[in-house]
Amino acid sequence: MPYFDAASSAPLHPVARQALQAALADGWADPARLYREGRAARLLLDSAREAAADAVGCRPDELVFTPSGTHAVHAGVAGALAGRRRVGSRLAVSAVEHSSVLHAAAAHEAATGGAVTEVPVDRFGRVSSDGYDEALRPDTALACLQSANHEVGTEQPVALVAEVCRSRGVPLLVDAAQSLGWGPVEGAWSLLTASAHKWGGPAGVGLLAVRKGVRFAPQGPADERESGRAPGFQNLPAVVAAAASLRAVRAEAAAESVRLRALVDRIRTRVPELVPDVEVVGDPERRLPHLVTFSCLYVDGEALLHELDRADFSVSSGSSCTSSTLTPSHVLRAMGVLSEGNVRVSLPLGTPEAEVDRFLEVLPGLVSGVRERFGVPVAAAGREQAASGSVPAAAVSAEPVSSGPVSSGPVPSGPDGGEGERRGKLVVDALGRRCPIPVIELAKVFGDVPVGGTVTVLADDEAARLDIPAWCEMRGQEYVGERPADHGVAYVVRRVS
Amino acid sequence: MPYFDAASSAPLHPVARQALQAALADGWADPARLYREGRAARLLLDSAREAAADAVGCRPDELVFTPSGTHAVHAGVAGALAGRRRVGSRLAVSAVEHSSVLHAAAAHEAATGGAVTEVPVDRFGRVSSDGYDEALRPDTALACLQSANHEVGTEQPVALVAEVCRSRGVPLLVDAAQSLGWGPVEGAWSLLTASAHKWGGPAGVGLLAVRKGVRFAPQGPADERESGRAPGFQNLPAVVAAAASLRAVRAEAAAESVRLRALVDRIRTRVPELVPDVEVVGDPERRLPHLVTFSCLYVDGEALLHELDRADFSVSSGSSCTSSTLTPSHVLRAMGVLSEGNVRVSLPLGTPEAEVDRFLEVLPGLVSGVRERFGVPVAAAGREQAASGSVPAAAVSAEPVSSGPVSSGPVPSGPDGGEGERRGKLVVDALGRRCPIPVIELAKVFGDVPVGGTVTVLADDEAARLDIPAWCEMRGQEYVGERPADHGVAYVVRRVS
Repeated sequence: MPYFDAASSAPLHPVARQALQAALADGWADPARLYREGRAARLLLDSAREAAADAVGCRPDELVFTPSGTHAVHAGVAGALAGRRRVGSRLAVSAVEHSSVLHAAAAHEAATGGAVTEVPVDRFGRVSSDGYDEALRPDTALACLQSANHEVGTEQPVALVAEVCRSRGVPLLVDAAQSLGWGPVEGAWSLLTASAHKWGGPAGVGLLAVRKGVRFAPQGPADERESGRAPGFQNLPAVVAAAASLRAVRAEAAAESVRLRALVDRIRTRVPELVPDVEVVGDPERRLPHLVTFSCLYVDGEALLHELDRADFSVSSGSSCTSSTLTPSHVLRAMGVLSEGNVRVSLPLGTPEAEVDRFLEVLPGLVSGVRERFGVPVAAAGREQAASGSVPAAAVSAEPVSSGPVSSGPVPSGPDGGEGERRGKLVVDALGRRCPIPVIELAKVFGDVPVGGTVTVLADDEAARLDIPAWCEMRGQEYVGERPADHGVAYVVRRVS
Repeated sequence: MPYFDAASSAPLHPVARQALQAALADGWADPARLYREGRAARLLLDSAREAAADAVGCRPDELVFTPSGTHAVHAGVAGALAGRRRVGSRLAVSAVEHSSVLHAAAAHEAATGGAVTEVPVDRFGRVSSDGYDEALRPDTALACLQSANHEVGTEQPVALVAEVCRSRGVPLLVDAAQSLGWGPVEGAWSLLTASAHKWGGPAGVGLLAVRKGVRFAPQGPADERESGRAPGFQNLPAVVAAAASLRAVRAEAAAESVRLRALVDRIRTRVPELVPDVEVVGDPERRLPHLVTFSCLYVDGEALLHELDRADFSVSSGSSCTSSTLTPSHVLRAMGVLSEGNVRVSLPLGTPEAEVDRFLEVLPGLVSGVRERFGVPVAAAGREQAASGSVPAAAVSAEPVSSGPVSSGPVPSGPDGGEGERRGKLVVDALGRRCPIPVIELAKVFGDVPVGGTVTVLADDEAARLDIPAWCEMRGQEYVGERPADHGVAYVVRRVS
């Protein structure tokens, strides 16, 4: 049963299971108590802290255990911001941080009126140290950067950004949730967070490291435990299991990272060969060894996930149709890449090669099956043609379907008058239709557009904003721009070949 | 190895262990995911929620799992206060709440400028519904009351207080951490919190129930999990174990509460017979079945705990010398009872009778051993006499040792002039001496005070403020009052018999 979603939660490592069971016997008492059961618990806690600190690359007294990675991020961001309140209340974060960081940033804005500066990423999802250099202001209290992206696997230049931050006197919090199992985070970071269930440890344990000398003022109600940085009774058996499994995972990391990287390379290479119209996203070189993400044009992400699940493959997706908010993943948006039919494969330690091969075997059929159900056009001799399908087509007209802003307003970017006006101007009404329909409808009519002519797609699905430009990029056509329309947005595409 | 500190953390119930191990196999994936491992996790989570809600007496959609009882309290207090921000920002709490409630109240005061009204308790540690009626104001947003006290076992009149709160339109949050294993909380409470490791469940799980219709605005960064009330990846194996063990513990509760209540009755009756100068504290009738607390005059709490530990008994204490802040427990202070030599015995389920009997066998010798080391006076024929001891005596003089405020200022309460002045006025300098020395020194010289005369004890140890009046109460002597002194406080006692 191939589970390919380690980046959500890794299966429990055998060492974690053993350590947890052993610690249940000796680690249930309150480590703050002085009697023997308390002393036994304290010993376990102290040695777990030493082991985890060793793996993080900090001193034991710089590290506390939190109930989750999310708690570590929330407490770390709030405490670091409060510790530097005198400097200012500006926070710099990359556009592709984990939602726990972005939610902490939003809470900071809402509660204190602090400002948040978002550092952009390139098409691989990677920030630059120059980006941080620009984002830091005299009133910046804290900068945050993930060690590697959780959706596309891109490794961030943490050491370079840490240098910029250090030279500007701004502490850097690194969210190492996706990478800590693979190795320590290099560079002069100030705070670091992580989550045990991402490396095969148990749920219920996060790490928060705060380097000596970093101003830190814990927020929320006071509590004596964990240096006042993580309230509540410690979950000692889980903490012990987290530390033990981190050590165990690290011992396997060198060999497994080579092996899994080869399997991921196989997916990166073979999927675009086996499946038409696929975009593999994320940095091809500087990336996590076990994670690869690709998006399939004209594919409903939820339908594909369902098909993969029926074929026994558990994967994740950043497509809008798989999110409760019906918006594409903020990571894919920030990268400006295709979001429809998005699939993230993240291999757990020990994934057999045969499972990856079987995935490559079944994927093409599943994708084409989903496409067929949506009546997707098949690329043939440079021209798009509609395949027979069961999904009703959107309304298409040679004239604008609306007499409102769509027909009257000028296209915001690029010339669209004169010759172009006369050579053809189709309008596709995909209002009320969800991803991937708007792009499918665009493709269906595109064959009828003369070179130099335009198609306008009316859509109110959030994913269209990302996926129509991405389609143009993939197809080598010109994305002219968007403008507001009556009940949605008008996206204009010009055929250039 | 008798572990008598269930109120700190109960040993893991066998059902919790079994459920935890089973859930480790099926409950490690993200319950928000749609693939089979996620669906399996979701099923476990849903059924744990139903079981826990059933035990709490609420609907499953009213209950969320938090990482600890402390998190439940912090989130519950903050969310309920924010939900009723328009009404006002006043919070009413009893004086004997768990520190998590008091810390949440202090954080509310500090962060929002909200006011906190403390409801007093009687000498048994019990609030009255009248006390809450008086405390509630038009701007009271929330009231908090524990179901039973964690240090002295006194059950609170929750149903009566809930009625008062309901009639005044104020929601009541009940901290049921100590009682939930014994049964549901009666009465029309609005919010309820609990902690699994207190009933034999695993660490890492708290409960927060918020009744439908209660205004609640979760604070802190947003998170989709647990109805937005408890951020972070759920600790599913622990949640499953918590729910299963709560059910198991409840099945044993009726029989065990009768059995343990008899054992606790034995301690309540026998300890004062076996050990001189002991005060058993807490309500003698309306109390938790498994918990009893007593204080031993002239005894250093830490020394006694150490001796009990050497004799294999693990107990807890509210004495100042066993706290990191060197102040006596706020519960004992609010009750106005003796804090020195304080011992809390809380029996886990299944505690054998023989262990309690052995405790009663060894306790008298251990207490008298500690007393001897401190040179404690032995009560003989109505007169206190100093036993030979190894601890140096405090300075005693017939005149005030200080010419500062102690000698010049009048005693604040009670007449102390005329006849009394001439009949004897000893001053004991116990400055810099910690509990129980100030009371021991008082007792040593008391035999030399003529009836009607006074002794002034100079002390800077916080415990003296509680223990000197308590000594007077136990000895039937008059506590005249206190006044500021040069480096501490002058406590004045008059001999009346």
